[in-house]
Amino acid sequence: MKFSVDQKVFSKALSEVGRAVSQKSLLPILSGIKVIAENEGITLIGTNSDIIITRFISREKTSGVMIIDQTGSAVVSARYFTELIRKLPEDVHIEVDDKHVVKVRSGDIFTKLNGFLADEYPRLPEINRTYSFTMGANELKETIKQTVFATAKNETRPVLTGVHFMFSNNELTAVATNSQRLASVINEVQVKEETSFIVPSSSLNELIKQISDYSGIVKISWADGYILFEINQVSLYSRLISGQYPNTSKLIPNEQKTILRLNKDHLVKGIDRACLFAGEWKNNNITLSIKDHKLCISSGSSEMGNIQELQEINDFSGDNDLKVSIDGHFLKEALHTIKDEEINMKFNGSMRPIVIESTHQKSRYLHLISPVRSF
Amino acid sequence: MKFSVDQKVFSKALSEVGRAVSQKSLLPILSGIKVIAENEGITLIGTNSDIIITRFISREKTSGVMIIDQTGSAVVSARYFTELIRKLPEDVHIEVDDKHVVKVRSGDIFTKLNGFLADEYPRLPEINRTYSFTMGANELKETIKQTVFATAKNETRPVLTGVHFMFSNNELTAVATNSQRLASVINEVQVKEETSFIVPSSSLNELIKQISDYSGIVKISWADGYILFEINQVSLYSRLISGQYPNTSKLIPNEQKTILRLNKDHLVKGIDRACLFAGEWKNNNITLSIKDHKLCISSGSSEMGNIQELQEINDFSGDNDLKVSIDGHFLKEALHTIKDEEINMKFNGSMRPIVIESTHQKSRYLHLISPVRSF
Repeated sequence: MKFSVDQKVFSKALSEVGRAVSQKSLLPILSGIKVIAENEGITLIGTNSDIIITRFISREKTSGVMIIDQTGSAVVSARYFTELIRKLPEDVHIEVDDKHVVKVRSGDIFTKLNGFLADEYPRLPEINRTYSFTMGANELKETIKQTVFATAKNETRPVLTGVHFMFSNNELTAVATNSQRLASVINEVQVKEETSFIVPSSSLNELIKQISDYSGIVKISWADGYILFEINQVSLYSRLISGQYPNTSKLIPNEQKTILRLNKDHLVKGIDRACLFAGEWKNNNITLSIKDHKLCISSGSSEMGNIQELQEINDFSGDNDLKVSIDGHFLKEALHTIKDEEINMKFNGSMRPIVIESTHQKSRYLHLISPVRSF
Repeated sequence: MKFSVDQKVFSKALSEVGRAVSQKSLLPILSGIKVIAENEGITLIGTNSDIIITRFISREKTSGVMIIDQTGSAVVSARYFTELIRKLPEDVHIEVDDKHVVKVRSGDIFTKLNGFLADEYPRLPEINRTYSFTMGANELKETIKQTVFATAKNETRPVLTGVHFMFSNNELTAVATNSQRLASVINEVQVKEETSFIVPSSSLNELIKQISDYSGIVKISWADGYILFEINQVSLYSRLISGQYPNTSKLIPNEQKTILRLNKDHLVKGIDRACLFAGEWKNNNITLSIKDHKLCISSGSSEMGNIQELQEINDFSGDNDLKVSIDGHFLKEALHTIKDEEINMKFNGSMRPIVIESTHQKSRYLHLISPVRSF
């Protein structure tokens, strides 16, 4: 393999792919980036156990220098290669010898990096692109942001560490839960077959970063055990979590005793203040109640102090004998994903989950938070 | 104590003082901020074992609300108080009861914080302001930045953890060394008496932060064991390090075998690249030598790879048989403090310290770095 490439273009592509690479991998070769030079351009591949990112730099479309003198491939330490290329001043000339030594030259700077045997690098999963659909990047980002925070952080039930995507009747429903809280969002999509899969939260968080500045179309394909997101010259493969996702629809209460319509920003700030005094308690326990026709948010530990505040209720219906203790941090995270000015908060007694929904007749999002026993 | 104050003004002042407060203090009361309300305004005090910061909010000069209903003082948890005030929406009303409970109200938000007994808070050191001088904040910041990085990080010789300030003949010489490298800078000041003191690096780093946006005059006073920096409405007290600072002037070599005049930016970048391959080695070992009338910078471990680059020498005098191994990280840190476009690098054989100076006849700064044995 032998090629010359523009330093800025190459450095940017390396850092995009390098984010997928884990330095803590058990297999040393997975700490490397695979570089493939073909006549059409250069492909970079990085992976950890959950995701694989590939990035293609097209010879035709690149803005800077690209000369492919000899095709081939090499695997070289992601950390050292990325850092080195970033620090070089001008066009980079790369050549691999028989002993997997990668020679890098830029001006009067000569470097040798010991590489890995490229043939030993894992192959990309084969994905049949018949099962695929497209989605706007902004819509996809919103769907992920509105659910991924609610996934379980511990691995006792692996399915709960991912987001459950369900396709049915040209609707995509995404759900995440850690069994104390649940977040769900519905989007319209054009998908023919009914299907569902569970994508690890780590892959979705990485996907959001990769498409943060992108607002075009994302092509999504899947096969046994894998899902593939394609955006321009970047492909992100993620393993899927196998197993049966719980039937979450039956968790959502059909009736409610009390409905409050509240200003979302005021509520977020009030919960944030109450959390300050709830941190020391187990479960970030804060209490919501109704007092003088206002919402009363309170929390307090005997040691540090306590807080109590009253907020206007924009609209009220049902029973006003209300007192619920819940995890303030869960509530804050759910509210942060909502862009509406107002929300509906629905209560069903002090031991039943509270529901947060849009004030529109048909809510696209739904958040459910179980109460905490405060006694 | 009872007063009302503008939330923004009070929050900013609290965060400035709160930076001095250590949450890990052995004395619980030192995790608090002392608040003193007087007719003239409000004073805030925060401290850890090394520094004390006081901040005065003048009633006359403040832009927002300030009403002092009752003078007095209180000590309240820096972390909780600062966070709480930051999160409040409007004017803050504060009142302390007999049991040191600090009541904070802002609109419909009511908080109680358990405070400490204000009388038990340590007193400010008494500093006689006869021994004092003034210095421009920018000059002071530069003096600190050019030396403080070179202080010793471990405490085996406590005097080396501070910067040594020496006043003599209307000159201020600041010196720092960890015994492998030394940084020194000279400034003109108007000081009558000859004196010297050693200021802890942690205090100087905090001082830089406090005056980062300030370019006026700093008043500096000292007394037995303490130094005081006064800037507008902020006072920073620091303990001084007692003990005899080593005589560093005799460490600086009077003659040199080789002098190179080099472009500073190119050199920094070259050293930075070489350090990439030096990190795994002990002492960030990089090698400087002369090759084909150019400066050769190299480093390398057999495991990862190696680097070698050639840089132009702008001017050369002396012996060209040169090979020195030094700590690349020390060299990088020294060069980063220099603003000149060119520097002189002076060598005196492979086992003697290298010297970095200005290319001007009378250099204000001097950096000394001892070589590392590379065999």
